[in-house]
Amino acid sequence: MSNTMQERNLTMLVDYYELSMANGYFVNGMGDTITYFDMFFRKVPDNGGFAIMAGLRQLVDYLKNLSFTEKDIEFLRKKGLDEGFIDYLKNFEFKCDVWAIPEGTPIFPGEPIITVKGPVIQAQLIETMVLLTVNHQSLIATKANRLRRAAGDRVLMEFGSRRAQGYDGAVYGARAAYIGGCDATACAIDERDFGIPAVGTMAHSWIQLFGDELEAFRAYARQYPDNCTLLVDTYNVLRSGIPNAIKVFNEEVVSRGFRPKGIRIDSGDITYLSKKARKMLDETGFSDCKIVASNSLDEIIIKDMILQGAQVDSFGVGERLITAASTPVFGGVYKIVAVEENGVPVPRIKLSENVQKITTPCAKKVYRLFDNESGKAIADVITLLDEEIDSSKPYELFDPNYTWKKKTVENYTAKPLLVKIFDGGKCCYECPDIKEIKAYCTQQVNETLWDEVKRFENPHNYYVDLSQKLWDEKQRLLSEYSNKTH
Amino acid sequence: MSNTMQERNLTMLVDYYELSMANGYFVNGMGDTITYFDMFFRKVPDNGGFAIMAGLRQLVDYLKNLSFTEKDIEFLRKKGLDEGFIDYLKNFEFKCDVWAIPEGTPIFPGEPIITVKGPVIQAQLIETMVLLTVNHQSLIATKANRLRRAAGDRVLMEFGSRRAQGYDGAVYGARAAYIGGCDATACAIDERDFGIPAVGTMAHSWIQLFGDELEAFRAYARQYPDNCTLLVDTYNVLRSGIPNAIKVFNEEVVSRGFRPKGIRIDSGDITYLSKKARKMLDETGFSDCKIVASNSLDEIIIKDMILQGAQVDSFGVGERLITAASTPVFGGVYKIVAVEENGVPVPRIKLSENVQKITTPCAKKVYRLFDNESGKAIADVITLLDEEIDSSKPYELFDPNYTWKKKTVENYTAKPLLVKIFDGGKCCYECPDIKEIKAYCTQQVNETLWDEVKRFENPHNYYVDLSQKLWDEKQRLLSEYSNKTH
Repeated sequence: MSNTMQERNLTMLVDYYELSMANGYFVNGMGDTITYFDMFFRKVPDNGGFAIMAGLRQLVDYLKNLSFTEKDIEFLRKKGLDEGFIDYLKNFEFKCDVWAIPEGTPIFPGEPIITVKGPVIQAQLIETMVLLTVNHQSLIATKANRLRRAAGDRVLMEFGSRRAQGYDGAVYGARAAYIGGCDATACAIDERDFGIPAVGTMAHSWIQLFGDELEAFRAYARQYPDNCTLLVDTYNVLRSGIPNAIKVFNEEVVSRGFRPKGIRIDSGDITYLSKKARKMLDETGFSDCKIVASNSLDEIIIKDMILQGAQVDSFGVGERLITAASTPVFGGVYKIVAVEENGVPVPRIKLSENVQKITTPCAKKVYRLFDNESGKAIADVITLLDEEIDSSKPYELFDPNYTWKKKTVENYTAKPLLVKIFDGGKCCYECPDIKEIKAYCTQQVNETLWDEVKRFENPHNYYVDLSQKLWDEKQRLLSEYSNKTH
Repeated sequence: MSNTMQERNLTMLVDYYELSMANGYFVNGMGDTITYFDMFFRKVPDNGGFAIMAGLRQLVDYLKNLSFTEKDIEFLRKKGLDEGFIDYLKNFEFKCDVWAIPEGTPIFPGEPIITVKGPVIQAQLIETMVLLTVNHQSLIATKANRLRRAAGDRVLMEFGSRRAQGYDGAVYGARAAYIGGCDATACAIDERDFGIPAVGTMAHSWIQLFGDELEAFRAYARQYPDNCTLLVDTYNVLRSGIPNAIKVFNEEVVSRGFRPKGIRIDSGDITYLSKKARKMLDETGFSDCKIVASNSLDEIIIKDMILQGAQVDSFGVGERLITAASTPVFGGVYKIVAVEENGVPVPRIKLSENVQKITTPCAKKVYRLFDNESGKAIADVITLLDEEIDSSKPYELFDPNYTWKKKTVENYTAKPLLVKIFDGGKCCYECPDIKEIKAYCTQQVNETLWDEVKRFENPHNYYVDLSQKLWDEKQRLLSEYSNKTH
């Protein structure tokens, strides 16, 4: 399996302030200071109950390829950076440890989904690409999973390339959509590069080129009798498109020993039209012919269509999936949480004027507690780096904001979520095949999440709690820094 | 000036149905049929009065690089396409004529912004990339222009890479933002590749690494006394950030013979804080020190901040610009409008169940009529390909929907908007330098558009009219096809 990322060097896709700071650290002799950075997000898009982690494969490729070309060096020299620092970049060798939650995993606000430990210059420099990669793909995977939940077991296809925000928006968007729940994409390059099934039959232009719908359908059916899906809304679905399709299915498909695959409706009131279409197809012996719907669909419309009895077997979703149009931003941030002093990580906090922008300090681990009986996830617990949760003992959860809200869990398994993917700058992680990632995502969502977390309206707020030690440490730093500024 | 697009071959970034159809055309012996396709859009994002054309430079690069690699051919063979067609792709040579409205031009719904004439296989094959490229960059350029109109002559910077939808979303998004109205970007690769100024000083992590704000500011100011902008909201803007900044400006900047550049506020009530900050800076002799604001800004907030007297000199706009979050889709479409028969273009129409999806048939031209006295644009007129508008004679405009609404214009200049960029598959257009494009955009918006078209609320509906001949032709086809389906 090839991967276009491996051919690209995106080292210079970096916010310039990372370079200003890195240069400053270098000149101040602080460049090798070991720091811990966490990536986390604060809010699930669309007010959903959870998100889906995605983008790790491309992040790994980027980190493996980190290096500054001659052209980059020349450019940076012109920007007036220190010559010693430029030398450092010239001989750049990635040395960080990186932990990440695997792709396809349901993730929740406030927990580290990536942690980077390493020399501050390096941990700082990768910020833009860590965020960009994981924000984008997690956004689309999360949206695709919503669509999957709306569509149930019907077929779901990603059709949005033409409306994506840039080429990678299309290519990696389709990848993320597949992980999150789509069965296929329209984008051919995604089959070539990732093995995601690329599908597609005809546009209106096919019919318009012939000028005559019947003749256009005939030509298509003769060409693809074994894979014949006809687009029926160029002129009039019920009066022209479907009658012509049925005629051609008989004349050109059945006569050749095949069964027609489907019809596609791309405009009009699809719920109404699909019911009429189903009836017309059934009455003419084509009850096995599928009905495909497209045209500005999203999870809310799909849910509603199914509720109204739309006879749609397969949904093609375009712009509202590939741009996650209803909430087009996944707001992951990357914050320093600790600085090593004499080999020990010393926590750092950011207060901020906005309470929700206050960070949780310390180098950390994340555990997901699964109920042994139901297999369901009960809560995520963020602990200090050296804390272990002993599943053989009861564990007391408490709400980090309303600390009197407590709950003791028993008969559970605590599973660490963060996996080491780079060790001293060397990749130590084998990215699973995309089909495995997709299957893992499906299994995690179907089997470990409660329905209350998965619904669209007012989903249950899944618990993401801090261990007592981490909570104490955060309170200590909050008072310390807020006293300093009074 | 280098350009990363030239190193990339995105030929396979194509919706698979383009390949199904092209294969079908080839096998049917229709591959060389000459067709005309128009790209146009139906609605301005954010209910605005106009959009800004962008993305042509990358479209030109893509069309120049069209070719199928061995790997592509092997992949397509496995998909079961016709061997003759695969041979055709192997020896693919682009032969289309392409016309486009130049980048930076204000554009309006319903008019062709790109027209492609050529063999149907080829004109069809490029659909996905034509749309993807122009939709994305026009979306961002249009949003940036809104921000520019809100910010007036204050500095406007694009800060969104980390929240972009994929790598190209960041890179070409910053390019489009610059064309539409931004002065600079945070994204370093955009300065390297396009010469767009890349700016940036420090993140909160700089302050957090030092642990002590004053010490962190000192280190930064010593490093960059000539370009010293300090981030003042890590702990408390008014009690800690600004007092520490003023102290350091005196100790480390002024003492070295420089003036401080600015302070940046990234959280809290920026309008309130900026007024307080301005006062504190003025009272300590730093009235020349600029105030930079960031944190979830958009054109509505910026307009409101300025109205409330915010003392902000420079705005950094992130996710809401780079994803055009309020309307994250530019809905350009690409439709067949004519097919050559015996060397003459014969019009094609699509009826559709949704009236707004009906296309305007025929190979066309677009004229913009400028008032000779004011220099303002009066209307755009879409004509048949062989029609000329003679500026020396009065021209009667009429509304294509409410045809009794008429207006005769005199003393005007009719300027054709579409420029030929490919002739028989060869590029015949020199893309202007990005600074020229930006200047042209500014001039067009400032000098040729009425304020009524530029406002955010209920902007005036700019006239995009059809010539009498084109209108007649459309009506003729509408009745013809709608009779066919009754």
